[in-house]
Amino acid sequence: MDALKLTMPALGIDLGGTKIRAAAVLDNKILGEPLQVPTPNGPDNIVRAILDLVIAFQAKYILKGIGIATAGIIDGETGEVIGSTGNLPGWTGTPLKLAVERSTLLPVHVENDANAAAFGEVSARNLRGLKCVCVVTLGTGIGGGLLIDGKLFRGAHWGAGEVGHARISLGNKRLCTCGLFDCWEAYGSGRGMVATAKDILQGLTPGQSPLLELMPELTTRQIVKAANDGDIIAQRAINVWHEHVAIGIVNLAHVLDPDVFVLTGGMAECVDFALLHEMVVDRCMARIGENMNIQKSELEGIAGIIGAAQLVLDAILERA
Amino acid sequence: MDALKLTMPALGIDLGGTKIRAAAVLDNKILGEPLQVPTPNGPDNIVRAILDLVIAFQAKYILKGIGIATAGIIDGETGEVIGSTGNLPGWTGTPLKLAVERSTLLPVHVENDANAAAFGEVSARNLRGLKCVCVVTLGTGIGGGLLIDGKLFRGAHWGAGEVGHARISLGNKRLCTCGLFDCWEAYGSGRGMVATAKDILQGLTPGQSPLLELMPELTTRQIVKAANDGDIIAQRAINVWHEHVAIGIVNLAHVLDPDVFVLTGGMAECVDFALLHEMVVDRCMARIGENMNIQKSELEGIAGIIGAAQLVLDAILERA
Repeated sequence: MDALKLTMPALGIDLGGTKIRAAAVLDNKILGEPLQVPTPNGPDNIVRAILDLVIAFQAKYILKGIGIATAGIIDGETGEVIGSTGNLPGWTGTPLKLAVERSTLLPVHVENDANAAAFGEVSARNLRGLKCVCVVTLGTGIGGGLLIDGKLFRGAHWGAGEVGHARISLGNKRLCTCGLFDCWEAYGSGRGMVATAKDILQGLTPGQSPLLELMPELTTRQIVKAANDGDIIAQRAINVWHEHVAIGIVNLAHVLDPDVFVLTGGMAECVDFALLHEMVVDRCMARIGENMNIQKSELEGIAGIIGAAQLVLDAILERA
Repeated sequence: MDALKLTMPALGIDLGGTKIRAAAVLDNKILGEPLQVPTPNGPDNIVRAILDLVIAFQAKYILKGIGIATAGIIDGETGEVIGSTGNLPGWTGTPLKLAVERSTLLPVHVENDANAAAFGEVSARNLRGLKCVCVVTLGTGIGGGLLIDGKLFRGAHWGAGEVGHARISLGNKRLCTCGLFDCWEAYGSGRGMVATAKDILQGLTPGQSPLLELMPELTTRQIVKAANDGDIIAQRAINVWHEHVAIGIVNLAHVLDPDVFVLTGGMAECVDFALLHEMVVDRCMARIGENMNIQKSELEGIAGIIGAAQLVLDAILERA
């Protein structure tokens, strides 16, 4: 028998709007490279794709359980998708845990993707002994996961950690993709950085910034490159974006006073952590600011996979 | 022996910037009327005043313990004041629990005043079985207390619940008494209502509002009276103030998704709860908004006394 089979990992699956990634996870580490397939259309096809991934991994491992991270609000008891985002049309109402358990006969845990990533970070960093950890996912949008005493805090109706939709401005200035105005996400996400750059570029004349030639399309990658190449307009946009990121962290710090913030997601790569720390402390009450600890994720995009898998292992242990 | 002596209440003390109030508390109710003395100057005199109150109550009751609610950040283990507000100069560094225990030989618990009020609300309403309760004190400033699984959540460094200093606006528009800009407190407190009214009154000409004659001094009481008397400018100020109160609640709802918000403090009297509920739900993601539950305190200013006393009773039970 294959020696790896004896170790019995869990399968972690990260279901995103464009792709589904999966890897076998043991002791907070993935075994080998993750498998990846495009996200198909519609709930039935997504469940089928997940089951195909399970079968692919069962050829190599005896799986202990399956953890699935997905966008949307998840009922942690039934594993049902009870609130969905625009990224996965028709996803609300899917009894995901039940569907996968029935077909695989394995224990399944379904978790909101930001929560799963948060649990992965805390689990992999051995931070479960802390009082409070805030994990903020800075990507196209902003998500969050809160750990209190080493456990995910999901709120009274599974909706906690929607930190991207806290409001950081008055006056209905910027529309968020959620339909609300002035959400943190509308400013501090990748989309927010682009919107801020476009605001600054408005009214400039050709030649004042190389970004003008890229309009009306503009990507965070282009803004960061222009800033690195010395364009002061791009640098200004990135500086203002840091201020916007800072404000959301300031707000969480005053509400929760966590031991540590961990920033993850693609946009965490664009953060100047020294600058962000300074901006956050400047905007905090002294007593809150002096304990400020903001760290960068070290899991590079696999936090959700690891977290989902560790959550099902935890659930199995709790039941045992 | 006096029958009341047999019941053994705890003494609850609420230490404010202008007065110290105390009452014997049993089963979440105060026995008789609270005693009240002016807050003297300096930590030594304050401790002496507290001890005098203890002696006054010991003439009537056999006290089980003493709970003290005070402004400032309190180390929950040592009962020391580790961060102070402007209301009590020189208060930081006071080993309050130790000082009162040494002189009275009774168990003492010291708690931040907003936390104590929150615990009092939850304890008196029998809400300790809920997942999460947010108690917001709307007064001259804004404070908060968070209960998770029936226990006060104080954060990693005793600073959680400083919800009044979350930032709700960009651009350094309004200075808060804490020295930061655009804190929720600068808009949603009583002081915030006055500032909003003054903003609106600027540029008006005499006769457009009776409030103009009261400038530059202006109180929330005057604004509320003018609104009730039909002044549309005052009504506008109160409407905008409701929007400001709503935004802070929206932010807490997205972060914590609590079972219920309880609003307490003097300014809670000025809240139109139907209007506030509508404004909050309008600014929330559907899934968060549909569970919104905002209630008014029923303890009318004695929440801190009850909470402080119940906290010391709890601490005694936990030790037993």
